[in-house]
Amino acid sequence: MDRESHEVRWLTDREMLVWRSYIVSTLMLRQRLHRELVDGQQVSLIDYEVLVCLSDAEGDAMRMSDLATMLGSTKSRLSHQIGRMEAAGFVRRVRHPGDRRGVTAELTDKGAELLRRSAPTHVDSVREHFVDLLTDQEQEIMGRAFTRVLAHLSEAGE
Amino acid sequence: MDRESHEVRWLTDREMLVWRSYIVSTLMLRQRLHRELVDGQQVSLIDYEVLVCLSDAEGDAMRMSDLATMLGSTKSRLSHQIGRMEAAGFVRRVRHPGDRRGVTAELTDKGAELLRRSAPTHVDSVREHFVDLLTDQEQEIMGRAFTRVLAHLSEAGE
Repeated sequence: MDRESHEVRWLTDREMLVWRSYIVSTLMLRQRLHRELVDGQQVSLIDYEVLVCLSDAEGDAMRMSDLATMLGSTKSRLSHQIGRMEAAGFVRRVRHPGDRRGVTAELTDKGAELLRRSAPTHVDSVREHFVDLLTDQEQEIMGRAFTRVLAHLSEAGE
Repeated sequence: MDRESHEVRWLTDREMLVWRSYIVSTLMLRQRLHRELVDGQQVSLIDYEVLVCLSDAEGDAMRMSDLATMLGSTKSRLSHQIGRMEAAGFVRRVRHPGDRRGVTAELTDKGAELLRRSAPTHVDSVREHFVDLLTDQEQEIMGRAFTRVLAHLSEAGE
């Protein structure tokens, strides 16, 4: 899109409502989820999210670049975070010389145990502050909408 | 809610779909909005969000504690960020000795100018990667749902 040569299309009232309520509630929600994980399990939300991603991946391992994309992080920020998590024993980094995958991050047994222990706290928080506040119809529609946004961003990022 | 004495209600497939697509697309979206602001206007997304909040507030000023709540930040993290922005001339901190409002952050003329200059870039990004991907019906329903989540979190935070 040529962004220089067009008029700005400011958001309408309806668009502004959905955008602002989405952004502000999401920021507050993440802060709340973070605090409940820290208080209950001494793990930060962003570390918890790394554990979930690795645990869902084949072989409990992901390329650092794929992990950065999925977490909306940058390579350098993620590298710093994974360094901390590796020092604590929750993940390990493995280099793959000779193939092009570069460095992968792998879940350790200690990381898997932390995830198992923390998941109930996180699910309770997710229900209380988000999922259980939505009707079935809202869940259907929002699931479809965010899946579309995700596909767009995955394509746009390549 | 007594969280110790109940069975964990894991998410159903539909709940998991909405939750995961929402979380992952939001992380990717924020990273994308951030990059387009940095590339186009040399301002970070979190600094831009501070400018928007102040600009919307009465007198272009907010208590630091209210600003932290709205941005899903903590007092110490926000204080660090506002310190940087103050040094760059975009905001100023004002102490109110004798009343209980504590410290407020105020938008400066330079900050207002940065916001004016950056807003078209940000609106284009928000349209391209989110708002224009949603139907009118989805916007209605999501606006209602996130407004409810926001009200819940605002109450729960007190």
